[in-house]
Amino acid sequence: MAVAEDKKTSIKGGEFLIKETSASQIFIPEEFTEEQRMIADTCKDFLSREIWPRLDEIDNAKSPDLISGLMDKAGELGLLGTAVPEEYGGFGMNFNTSMLVAEATGAGNSFSVALSAHTGIGTLPILYYGNEEQKSKYLPKLATGEWKAAYCLTEPDSGSDANSGKTKARLTEDGKHYAITGQKMWITNGGFADIFIVFAKIEENGQIDKNLTAFIIEKSSNGITMNEPEHKMGIKGSDTRQIFFNDCLVPAENMLSERGNGFKIAVNILNIGRIKLAAAALGGAKMVTRQAIQYANERKQFGTAISGFGAIKYKLAEMAVGMFATESASYRVGQNIDDLITAFQEKGMPDSESKLKALEELAIECAIMKVHGSEVLDYVVDEGVQIYGGMGFSADAPMDRAYRDSRINRIFEGTNEINRLLVVDMLLKRTMKGQLDLMGPAMAVGKEIMSIPDFSSDEDESLFAAEKKVIRSLKKAVLMIAGAAVQKFMMKLSEEQEIIMNLADMIIETYVAESVLLRVEKRIGLLGADANALQKDMAVVYLNKAVEKINNAGRSAITSFAEGDELRVMLMGLKRFTKTEPVNLKDARRRIADKLIAKNDYAF
Amino acid sequence: MAVAEDKKTSIKGGEFLIKETSASQIFIPEEFTEEQRMIADTCKDFLSREIWPRLDEIDNAKSPDLISGLMDKAGELGLLGTAVPEEYGGFGMNFNTSMLVAEATGAGNSFSVALSAHTGIGTLPILYYGNEEQKSKYLPKLATGEWKAAYCLTEPDSGSDANSGKTKARLTEDGKHYAITGQKMWITNGGFADIFIVFAKIEENGQIDKNLTAFIIEKSSNGITMNEPEHKMGIKGSDTRQIFFNDCLVPAENMLSERGNGFKIAVNILNIGRIKLAAAALGGAKMVTRQAIQYANERKQFGTAISGFGAIKYKLAEMAVGMFATESASYRVGQNIDDLITAFQEKGMPDSESKLKALEELAIECAIMKVHGSEVLDYVVDEGVQIYGGMGFSADAPMDRAYRDSRINRIFEGTNEINRLLVVDMLLKRTMKGQLDLMGPAMAVGKEIMSIPDFSSDEDESLFAAEKKVIRSLKKAVLMIAGAAVQKFMMKLSEEQEIIMNLADMIIETYVAESVLLRVEKRIGLLGADANALQKDMAVVYLNKAVEKINNAGRSAITSFAEGDELRVMLMGLKRFTKTEPVNLKDARRRIADKLIAKNDYAF
Repeated sequence: MAVAEDKKTSIKGGEFLIKETSASQIFIPEEFTEEQRMIADTCKDFLSREIWPRLDEIDNAKSPDLISGLMDKAGELGLLGTAVPEEYGGFGMNFNTSMLVAEATGAGNSFSVALSAHTGIGTLPILYYGNEEQKSKYLPKLATGEWKAAYCLTEPDSGSDANSGKTKARLTEDGKHYAITGQKMWITNGGFADIFIVFAKIEENGQIDKNLTAFIIEKSSNGITMNEPEHKMGIKGSDTRQIFFNDCLVPAENMLSERGNGFKIAVNILNIGRIKLAAAALGGAKMVTRQAIQYANERKQFGTAISGFGAIKYKLAEMAVGMFATESASYRVGQNIDDLITAFQEKGMPDSESKLKALEELAIECAIMKVHGSEVLDYVVDEGVQIYGGMGFSADAPMDRAYRDSRINRIFEGTNEINRLLVVDMLLKRTMKGQLDLMGPAMAVGKEIMSIPDFSSDEDESLFAAEKKVIRSLKKAVLMIAGAAVQKFMMKLSEEQEIIMNLADMIIETYVAESVLLRVEKRIGLLGADANALQKDMAVVYLNKAVEKINNAGRSAITSFAEGDELRVMLMGLKRFTKTEPVNLKDARRRIADKLIAKNDYAF
Repeated sequence: MAVAEDKKTSIKGGEFLIKETSASQIFIPEEFTEEQRMIADTCKDFLSREIWPRLDEIDNAKSPDLISGLMDKAGELGLLGTAVPEEYGGFGMNFNTSMLVAEATGAGNSFSVALSAHTGIGTLPILYYGNEEQKSKYLPKLATGEWKAAYCLTEPDSGSDANSGKTKARLTEDGKHYAITGQKMWITNGGFADIFIVFAKIEENGQIDKNLTAFIIEKSSNGITMNEPEHKMGIKGSDTRQIFFNDCLVPAENMLSERGNGFKIAVNILNIGRIKLAAAALGGAKMVTRQAIQYANERKQFGTAISGFGAIKYKLAEMAVGMFATESASYRVGQNIDDLITAFQEKGMPDSESKLKALEELAIECAIMKVHGSEVLDYVVDEGVQIYGGMGFSADAPMDRAYRDSRINRIFEGTNEINRLLVVDMLLKRTMKGQLDLMGPAMAVGKEIMSIPDFSSDEDESLFAAEKKVIRSLKKAVLMIAGAAVQKFMMKLSEEQEIIMNLADMIIETYVAESVLLRVEKRIGLLGADANALQKDMAVVYLNKAVEKINNAGRSAITSFAEGDELRVMLMGLKRFTKTEPVNLKDARRRIADKLIAKNDYAF
């Protein structure tokens, strides 16, 4: 594999599998500027002042006024307009800053969901797909929070299969309005939204479009009714409704983008939601980990703080390592998006189109991070409950809410199953279209596993040389199995979801492990090795767990389709590609945990 | 390893690690009699008639009257007296029947917890440790439900470390009463219990006992106050309170067993609770799996029922396999307990003592099953939520409650961490005491890994010959690592909780995998191979996943303490002992799932 030239603009989605990335090519959170950190601090201050004292109140609120009022306050502070360009009353910050804001506001439980639904899936369709009139009309109000937005895609019979919605739009005879009729569900902010982004299929002469079209519907329109808020496991303070549109008349000029373009809008907007979800989940996980460390330091059993027990140290270390990994990879993707946007803009592409193109290009990485971030958060809250013991099950301690609220993240913005399928599906589609050359490298790996392994000892003694070799090998493992599966099943691979899930797991772990390693390498370059002992331990722990997962998933995939000689050769190849030197991870985890315990806080 | 003689009474706790068990030696659920099945059906009918229509009502109840009244109804049907001898107004059923009852009543959410707290930790201390007067006075009332019981062990500062409680008992000057003072928390059934089993330390002349003493306290005693019910994540209908005893006067004759015997009582009673918890968790898991299968068959996306997708089939199969495994091992333990009780009784041991001795002997297996059953249930409810998608997060569908209610099972009756520690601790203590010869076989394995592996082909073509060889090897892997860890750390092994956790995982998986295999072997003997295609697939899937887990845990343990040559040799040994022929588990899981889907129900 050739080392990519150090031009960030050359980044292609999914290419990490076949190209080696250097540490200098990735952004690391340590590089955030003072200004960016101050913005994040403003968000955190807002949460600690306005939200944390009211978590119970928010969850128990009988009317949406409370959460809507808190959104107003967030709007006054400018927290709703970070991604909106200055010409429309926002701050026009770059993508990675909006990621940082998503993380900083991610620890606000129900409020975080309301906020991100407004600023993300509520506002972005207009920002990215609206025409000048629509943007001028709506964005300034949305950026300040004067108006709030909701996104209406899901229907009772249309969840993962989003394009199958039954909501219809019919042009009135005078051609001035569309009459929208249909039922939408799980609509976040539904109870207080001033505008709804609604996806419907246009019906004309008795024919219904194959694809969705998006509309901006104002609350004041006739024919909108809604149910009471849904009763949910968690994020109870997030106002979630079924909304009914009954011949709801929308001015024809409120169509977003073009007829039939709605599914594409939905997919692209969800895509942004996914990478932001990873950042928000990270913010939530940091909060929970801090609480768990403090509780473990306070709670005494058997005559000592329970943080002194190895079983607890293991959990604390794994929580920290998982978050460090999500953080490393999320901001890598965020900066890649920014760099691509800049590159497109420099080529003369309009602003919105540049952003969309960049996000589309990195859709694979966004899906990877949605899965990773939400699963790290679920791990963190689960161990948080366990560390709290009986109090973990009590509604009077924070873990109960954290555990319940977390669970939605593996479901919304595309279930993690759908996102895993998408990771592989998008990779293969790009390969088929010739946008990404996976098959060439896959065939090279196919040849390599038929040859005698290279037993020559490595003389490269540079930082992480051995670990980087492991990353290269993990990529080969992915390519070997993906290549063989494609050859075997061709177009029918989509019927082999179990194998796709295995491949997705391998790809996710490879991407994240590489990100962690490159971050620590860059960090050592910036801050020196002494300031990175903790980070180095985290990288080693993450990498070794990733190798274990990849080995397990790889074996599962191979035995699912290969037979005879092919099976033997591939299992041998997998063994070769997941070979690592044994490391004492227990000691590494203890060193990590001891630092967290001493600091009585989560911190990298 | 010698094959144990086919004498069930020879069973020793933990001995499964060094002895080979034959299929004929274990009980399988298929052997339950018609009468036992009818009892289970009565329980299920009761749940479906009285509990399932009221799940919301029970969870939302503002007073404990509803759940207490439902307990009365269960009492009228005889469901509270299954384990109580006939002479005390119960049915005197054997242990495994009470396990079956625990399973059958396990799908009642909050009600199940109330019921099992009453019949288990509430009633059993008197049944097993009460003197004749105490038994005659209380058991008939408890068996019918006229009186209800609660168990008061945990205190705010005394959870996992149960013997550290601060509640005190002081003999009054006339010697007629004990005055009890202290605070208990997480007391299930607290709000309506008529008697409390309370653990306290006796204070005499300013000296406080080192060990707990147990007392039976009637509700009518003075000095008992309690808080409002706790607000909890789940089992919201289970009345859980903090209870305060303020110079509460208890007749001296209400001391249970002897002074200082309380911790032993607590431990032994929790021990019974653990194996019953596995059965109850199984009952809950079966309910959830049935609902998930039915939902997956009903819910259509992308033009087809989602049960048709491989990703869903994987989940359904794993849910079924996990439950089949819990079921196989739980009833194996249950019958072992019964057989030991009978053996002790035949030797002339009194009834209660026989039961206690049997349960104490199999405490390791009880702890194993507590962990396994609660973790299978958590896996099942988690996947249940995921299969339901958005509806999984809705309080209007069953998965929300199942997910929340399940979570307590990994915490109460000893956290799963405490139980894992206990599994290894009890094994080693028995070894030290010479009750169990682990070190001999461990040393033999140590020699074996230094010798050249036996590459001769196996000529044994009997049923599961290869799989049984794998089980034998897994035991060797456990012995190899446990032996080396003991040699390395000696008495300091307890400070290496991470290694103990790894060992516990290996032991748990080995025991359960063996149980599954033996069950299917026996089942084939009873019903023929044709009727066991599904079961055979389940055994193969379980075994292979167990090997994977054992391999991962084993590597983790070895690299945590071994170095140099020892490290290499042990890793080679682990590799040898976890070697399996590759199997296509994807196809096996599809066959399993397809049967569940066709039946539209969970069923073995």
